[in-house]
Amino acid sequence: MKVSILGAGGLTGRELISYLKNHPNFELVHITSNKTKGKALSEVFPELGWDDSRLKFSDHSDPIPTGSLVVLAVPNEVALETAPVLLEKGHKVIDISGAFRLHNKEEFEFHYGIKHTAFEYMDRVQFGSPELFREKLKKADFVSNPGCYSSSVFLPLYFLGDLRKEIQSPVVVSAASGVSGAGGRTEEIGFTFTNTYENFRAYKVLSHQHTPEMIEYGFWNSPLHDLVFTPHLLPVYRGILSTIFVNFQREVPVSELENVFQKTSSEPFIRKKPKPEDIELKYVQNSNYLDFSYRIKGKQMILTSSLDNLGKGAAGGALQNMNLMCGFKETEGLLRL
Amino acid sequence: MKVSILGAGGLTGRELISYLKNHPNFELVHITSNKTKGKALSEVFPELGWDDSRLKFSDHSDPIPTGSLVVLAVPNEVALETAPVLLEKGHKVIDISGAFRLHNKEEFEFHYGIKHTAFEYMDRVQFGSPELFREKLKKADFVSNPGCYSSSVFLPLYFLGDLRKEIQSPVVVSAASGVSGAGGRTEEIGFTFTNTYENFRAYKVLSHQHTPEMIEYGFWNSPLHDLVFTPHLLPVYRGILSTIFVNFQREVPVSELENVFQKTSSEPFIRKKPKPEDIELKYVQNSNYLDFSYRIKGKQMILTSSLDNLGKGAAGGALQNMNLMCGFKETEGLLRL
Amino acid sequence: MKVSILGAGGLTGRELISYLKNHPNFELVHITSNKTKGKALSEVFPELGWDDSRLKFSDHSDPIPTGSLVVLAVPNEVALETAPVLLEKGHKVIDISGAFRLHNKEEFEFHYGIKHTAFEYMDRVQFGSPELFREKLKKADFVSNPGCYSSSVFLPLYFLGDLRKEIQSPVVVSAASGVSGAGGRTEEIGFTFTNTYENFRAYKVLSHQHTPEMIEYGFWNSPLHDLVFTPHLLPVYRGILSTIFVNFQREVPVSELENVFQKTSSEPFIRKKPKPEDIELKYVQNSNYLDFSYRIKGKQMILTSSLDNLGKGAAGGALQNMNLMCGFKETEGLLRL
Amino acid sequence: MKVSILGAGGLTGRELISYLKNHPNFELVHITSNKTKGKALSEVFPELGWDDSRLKFSDHSDPIPTGSLVVLAVPNEVALETAPVLLEKGHKVIDISGAFRLHNKEEFEFHYGIKHTAFEYMDRVQFGSPELFREKLKKADFVSNPGCYSSSVFLPLYFLGDLRKEIQSPVVVSAASGVSGAGGRTEEIGFTFTNTYENFRAYKVLSHQHTPEMIEYGFWNSPLHDLVFTPHLLPVYRGILSTIFVNFQREVPVSELENVFQKTSSEPFIRKKPKPEDIELKYVQNSNYLDFSYRIKGKQMILTSSLDNLGKGAAGGALQNMNLMCGFKETEGLLRL
Repeated sequence: MKVSILGAGGLTGRELISYLKNHPNFELVHITSNKTKGKALSEVFPELGWDDSRLKFSDHSDPIPTGSLVVLAVPNEVALETAPVLLEKGHKVIDISGAFRLHNKEEFEFHYGIKHTAFEYMDRVQFGSPELFREKLKKADFVSNPGCYSSSVFLPLYFLGDLRKEIQSPVVVSAASGVSGAGGRTEEIGFTFTNTYENFRAYKVLSHQHTPEMIEYGFWNSPLHDLVFTPHLLPVYRGILSTIFVNFQREVPVSELENVFQKTSSEPFIRKKPKPEDIELKYVQNSNYLDFSYRIKGKQMILTSSLDNLGKGAAGGALQNMNLMCGFKETEGLLRL
Repeated sequence: MKVSILGAGGLTGRELISYLKNHPNFELVHITSNKTKGKALSEVFPELGWDDSRLKFSDHSDPIPTGSLVVLAVPNEVALETAPVLLEKGHKVIDISGAFRLHNKEEFEFHYGIKHTAFEYMDRVQFGSPELFREKLKKADFVSNPGCYSSSVFLPLYFLGDLRKEIQSPVVVSAASGVSGAGGRTEEIGFTFTNTYENFRAYKVLSHQHTPEMIEYGFWNSPLHDLVFTPHLLPVYRGILSTIFVNFQREVPVSELENVFQKTSSEPFIRKKPKPEDIELKYVQNSNYLDFSYRIKGKQMILTSSLDNLGKGAAGGALQNMNLMCGFKETEGLLRL
Repeated sequence: MKVSILGAGGLTGRELISYLKNHPNFELVHITSNKTKGKALSEVFPELGWDDSRLKFSDHSDPIPTGSLVVLAVPNEVALETAPVLLEKGHKVIDISGAFRLHNKEEFEFHYGIKHTAFEYMDRVQFGSPELFREKLKKADFVSNPGCYSSSVFLPLYFLGDLRKEIQSPVVVSAASGVSGAGGRTEEIGFTFTNTYENFRAYKVLSHQHTPEMIEYGFWNSPLHDLVFTPHLLPVYRGILSTIFVNFQREVPVSELENVFQKTSSEPFIRKKPKPEDIELKYVQNSNYLDFSYRIKGKQMILTSSLDNLGKGAAGGALQNMNLMCGFKETEGLLRL
Repeated sequence: MKVSILGAGGLTGRELISYLKNHPNFELVHITSNKTKGKALSEVFPELGWDDSRLKFSDHSDPIPTGSLVVLAVPNEVALETAPVLLEKGHKVIDISGAFRLHNKEEFEFHYGIKHTAFEYMDRVQFGSPELFREKLKKADFVSNPGCYSSSVFLPLYFLGDLRKEIQSPVVVSAASGVSGAGGRTEEIGFTFTNTYENFRAYKVLSHQHTPEMIEYGFWNSPLHDLVFTPHLLPVYRGILSTIFVNFQREVPVSELENVFQKTSSEPFIRKKPKPEDIELKYVQNSNYLDFSYRIKGKQMILTSSLDNLGKGAAGGALQNMNLMCGFKETEGLLRL
């Protein structure tokens, strides 16, 4: 299957290229980047060891190879404009931006600060979580990949199953991400070495755009609860750790939780660990895994979860979806480490 | 005033020495360290620029200069044994360990894993928070310094004043500390570069020993609430950031909160900032400041607070208390940066 | 081909396992580690995503599967004892320690501080540099892998070809390595976060054990020159950058150098870059590449080179040699990123 | 003495303000910054704990308080224009830029890429190294502060005294600096977290503008030698370590070197340490010290030296000069830690 990546010059694009490099079923044929157009991939990202110097960055407006699966690693505005055009031309499309994640238009426009100009496609798009929608993804031609923070939160919540009905609102989440999860390649002052290293801070307090996703999919097929989310910026390159506080209406025994979480054992990229202290960035970096664990004391439970924001949180998760969309083995190309 | 520091070879001891170096009223006369006894201070800590090579580390059992104020920067067990002896000899004592912080013996023994062999001194010891007990500290001869995480949590809560009566339990706290707040000079595997750098993890989930302090002093003179505390280890050297989630029983207007927090403006080392995103480790490192701010949306408030675990959280806070105990200017020696 | 790794619990062992995971021709059948014996690989290194929980760490004294290629990732003393036994049993052996690198016994015993008890094997062992000894490696059954610093220095020097005859002694080398190149998983005080982070220092000044290797192979088939080597410890996890100063007897034109270096273009893992400033750790981390470049002004040349001390400098380089020893494609399993 | 700092919004300006805060003889009365003009110092740099909110950043063109000592922490071009005007108005001036360091006009224009429009002032300016020119500095009204890398190299060389006559050219220097020594507060892509952290690289190979300073003052009152200088960028915030290779014409015994270096013992900010491995960034960070040591083997000597690029390498060194210029105690305000 041929693959085109629009916006391939960013961190997510680069990561996806590194995953695709050794994938037996996908062939990368087209990459675009406004900043590096005309340059060879091997020149822009020498660390990827891409030998074939013929693959060059195209302009965003250049024709896209017919029949290729198109990955959108572009800003939200560009995804909104581009996805409909590509779909009409018959491309399979996977969008890594946030443009097609929220089913509530007002919420989208509040959080993303732009008009949603293709809202009719929200009926067609499939949210890209294999753990929730595996069978639907096998038939999908238009997939929206989850946000990096989102997956680290809605997946552990979703795994609680019927226990979610016995939660007291709000669920409180404190999460921390490395700079690559927050736009670190750009030249913003907030991401200079001087302002990040030996530092730590909260950002977008009570206003992060991934919050509605966490609620919609964390409580999928269950009554909704409030969720208060506070992201923080870590002086690390990659990885997200989320610490999730759940207050139950009753004391839930460990045996019941163990039983509920048992169903995650068949998931290829979900690993339940014995203790919440076992969840560390270093165990998931460069991988497509989500690790999680918990401790409960009476009604109060602390869940910790971790994933690589560029892996399961972006490029890895996207490739898992692409494998499903194209009928390939779900784990193909994703067990590289 | 002469000062002796027992356990001066650790990170807190070193920090206190650096604060005392230019203090006009204190004279450091005696330092002990089992590991470096016999060596000159200038040799062990060349970075302090201590010129007088005559000040050497003594053994813990060497006689302590009569009349000196004694700082205990030793393990809890040693503080339990040593403080009573020193007090009986007429020394003023400030204990930076956790030995004399908790008024509930069972709680102490659960959290610290040792018997409390000097519990009668809990009636005599003064908890060392100038913001809560300034006048009492001026008369105290035995002070117990707060834990580093504790101050970052109980102070913002305490500042809520009567609003604390309208809180719904539990308060949820997620905090993160640099390695110097967690024993980073020791050779433990958990604090090697390899296991800390480019990493992040929770520890002591639902079991950290500072939790009871946060409740006791955060709700001082107010009904108690549950508090769930999760500490994390940051790949930085120094600094603590705490993110505190408070759920009120009613919507509290910003004007009411601004009014309540107004009283912190007279505190020399408390700085209220405009936004919770303004609270960063880098603004408090190497200082004795505690910075805090908040955002509220309906009933839900996020408070962020930050301090240097070696500054306000240990050596700086101790010096502030020592100034009070000895009748010196409260800020003396603490505005070095 | 079956592979056994002795000493697989260290950083080099772990890296080699990660390379072998997707190698089509090697099958990892036996791993030993004194510290973690009895535990499953998937438990000790969860980050590797090794699914098969049956592969467990054995004791060093357990029998080694017959016919397997044995990788020695053990201390020098253990390699000295073990290699001869394994060779006599007919195993192919590759030694990643320094035990069989130096052909001068006195030099070995001076630098490594131990007696060389198997010096007769120095006639049999093949030094593991494909760039120098590719054809010999294809026939070798006993290979000694180069030191990590060594490869970063002797390879660029060797590539100078006949120009090495026109060098003035000494060649001066300043190099810097991340902690994983210097034993960073151990609990030594020198590798705590506190002593490494926000720090930089030289070590083993004028006494590093890789120096004789650099001379022997950097000037292979050419007159020897003095070489002064100073290693430094970087606050990074992986990667080595070497800055090499060469003083020629005459002004050497760039065209002549470009011509000489042309021959590296056929090497699969050597990349000559346009400028010495293009050589950065980040371009070689996690890979098996050695990048290098240079600038010359009159007689004075600065060469910079970079490799991953766990990649080309250890596990990657070893796998390249193993591919050659077993008749597999030289690059197999080494282009993962 | 009143002090004005032009360009006080940068890292050097901030550091100097932190030094001046507790200085008994200097009073900071005027600060300028084009980027933050109109804002209070306490707002721009809250971490300095500057209580008096009346001190605000002025525009560069605002009138400068009469009689104040003026510190130029501005770009080279601005210093070239401003210094003459200030001197004519009778201000004492200390320039931290590179504008008035080199006595060779062509060399200046080559390295700095601008015309030197005030070269007649090179007769009047005093180079600001107390170790070389203490008595002259006491009478100077116009001082040019050395470059940060420069001091770390020319001082150890200068301390060699007459032994410099027995050096073989070239001296080879490899140095590494934290990002604050290389413009790290700016938004350049080279100083983002992503491009600096877990990375290391050489820059300005064979072309760094501090090289002529190192030669001029390292060989002051002695025959000149070639010096080859290679700077590198470290993933740390502050600190410079230089590794200097000197090749003597004869074997120099340690006793002779110890004797020569003896004279540094009277210098208040120079510390000779026992071994070259004792020189670490962490011992000089936040201080005005230069630490150095060496090892010699036959004719070959490795010197290591370290300083804080913002301390002895910029603001600290400047304050030491200012103390001399104004007749204050040389160490006043510089022993803060």
